[in-house]
Amino acid sequence: MRNNQPLENASTLRPFPLRGWEITIGGLVDSQRRIDAESLTKMDQVDREMVLQCCGNGRSLFAQTVQAKGTQWTRGGMGNVRVTGVLLSTVLEKLGVRVGSRARYLTAGGKDHALPGKDDFEHSLPLDEVLQHSLLALNMNGRPIPAVHGGPVRLMTPGFYGTMHIKWLTDLRFEAEETNNGNHIPRYRTPRSPIAPGTPITYTVANSKACWRMKVKSVVLWPQPGAKLAARKQHIVRGVAFNDGSARIESVLLSTDRGQTWNTTRLEKPDSPYAWYRWTYNLKLRPGQHALWTRAVDRLGRSQPLQGSIHWNPSGYEWNGVEQIGIEAT
Amino acid sequence: MRNNQPLENASTLRPFPLRGWEITIGGLVDSQRRIDAESLTKMDQVDREMVLQCCGNGRSLFAQTVQAKGTQWTRGGMGNVRVTGVLLSTVLEKLGVRVGSRARYLTAGGKDHALPGKDDFEHSLPLDEVLQHSLLALNMNGRPIPAVHGGPVRLMTPGFYGTMHIKWLTDLRFEAEETNNGNHIPRYRTPRSPIAPGTPITYTVANSKACWRMKVKSVVLWPQPGAKLAARKQHIVRGVAFNDGSARIESVLLSTDRGQTWNTTRLEKPDSPYAWYRWTYNLKLRPGQHALWTRAVDRLGRSQPLQGSIHWNPSGYEWNGVEQIGIEAT
Repeated sequence: MRNNQPLENASTLRPFPLRGWEITIGGLVDSQRRIDAESLTKMDQVDREMVLQCCGNGRSLFAQTVQAKGTQWTRGGMGNVRVTGVLLSTVLEKLGVRVGSRARYLTAGGKDHALPGKDDFEHSLPLDEVLQHSLLALNMNGRPIPAVHGGPVRLMTPGFYGTMHIKWLTDLRFEAEETNNGNHIPRYRTPRSPIAPGTPITYTVANSKACWRMKVKSVVLWPQPGAKLAARKQHIVRGVAFNDGSARIESVLLSTDRGQTWNTTRLEKPDSPYAWYRWTYNLKLRPGQHALWTRAVDRLGRSQPLQGSIHWNPSGYEWNGVEQIGIEAT
Repeated sequence: MRNNQPLENASTLRPFPLRGWEITIGGLVDSQRRIDAESLTKMDQVDREMVLQCCGNGRSLFAQTVQAKGTQWTRGGMGNVRVTGVLLSTVLEKLGVRVGSRARYLTAGGKDHALPGKDDFEHSLPLDEVLQHSLLALNMNGRPIPAVHGGPVRLMTPGFYGTMHIKWLTDLRFEAEETNNGNHIPRYRTPRSPIAPGTPITYTVANSKACWRMKVKSVVLWPQPGAKLAARKQHIVRGVAFNDGSARIESVLLSTDRGQTWNTTRLEKPDSPYAWYRWTYNLKLRPGQHALWTRAVDRLGRSQPLQGSIHWNPSGYEWNGVEQIGIEAT
């Protein structure tokens, strides 16, 4: 759980009530609307299994080069959830909202307030994808979304990084440009072209992009780095892989010889393209130190860089380097 | 050799003379300039080894799904050349040209004329890359560029597809938008998001992109598809790999078991990031039918889709599927 701004009475697993929770729809629309969140329960519900991942997940792995600023996540800043709610497109249709032809982005904000001296938290999302995929989520894993996780209504766009799933949703604005809110730029951006680790960069809309679509990634869940395993015994390596859901994961490869040869793992294909894929691999090791490397490839041919630090950025966002862990067989 | 428009007296390996060849620089500049190409010989020369590839190379391989329109290239629409010339940025500096702040593209055209009922041939290129990388090339492989290959001056942007290297260069225009010339749109475009093979698409600047940066790709040069090789004998498989030069090729993997395991090939790293990488692999085969699959990965983690038709487009541009050839060992 990560919040940029605390909201009063929200540090609880209990949900806020839907009734009386107001959401405003404005900006480039025919006329501004205000709805009570309870009305969402009467609209068509959809559910989506999806990976919920902080864009800073894996940040500490950049430290092989120059340490990136922020929570030093290794691999735990992610989960796989099932959310239920109403597609934004359904809400707009139901309310008869006409979005202006100049609109290119949806800017969303929540009930939480700005910290002293900072901009109130909001993000802009690309309109075409929002109109296809975003939902006003009411439930997570079969229960009303707990207040601490952004309920009663959270804007969720499957395939996007966690920061873009706006908690305690109250404001939706259709706009021609990305917001210049400090939480959207310079925060939560990466350079459009790689920069050498340690290079300072002043972000502009032109030289950077928002942390939107998740990069393809594989993670080893078992064994953990540094684990000691029985030698000459059969083990089952387990992990997950995912991307932004725009194409299926094609394969997850595993190497025990530092990339000289790669073996295909057994891959379980989830129904939802936004969910993670579980994979397993049978492993028997001679006594000694060993490296386990994994690499996912999707059907578009997108894969993980061998040295993830090629995508180094000052805030350590969007790590997706080839997973490289050391283990010992005894 | 592929020309969209013929130029009189250009079907020869002899070069046109530089003297008297005029190039105009206009559009969003402080004032229009006209130079004689001979003046380029007095400016600093640079040389670039680079892949010159038709964006339709590999087009016939899309035919596994729905045949794409155009010359049914297999793998031969490419070569590796060394060009020498003057960086565009050098020319602009030498002439004191001030490019307007609204300029985002360079549109370039040549002396060849429009075919009846068609637009004259020109392309727009992204300004930031053009100012870094494009050159007004005068020589190819140590000799003046033959007329048939676009001499005496050809605009070359290493890492870009062949159609973007404007032959018989006479016009450079700095512009705020991509040209709406029919040869730039709808020709020489691919969809921004994959479409199912056979789907018609009406290209717009928003839903498509120009054939600019070359996709990462590996090609087997020997053996050829359908070749018969001696069984149980050592052979050396040979091929090349390349991308757009914005990151180095990290590895080329080869599979003889239809993707279950992948082996790293020996890779020769050229000095120029835009040149192709030669790779070799020692192979011994049991008698019977065999598949050779190859896949390149670059340092950004960009690789080739296992089924290249995921990038299907009506004109069959930018094929970069995993190389999959069948051979026989006897």
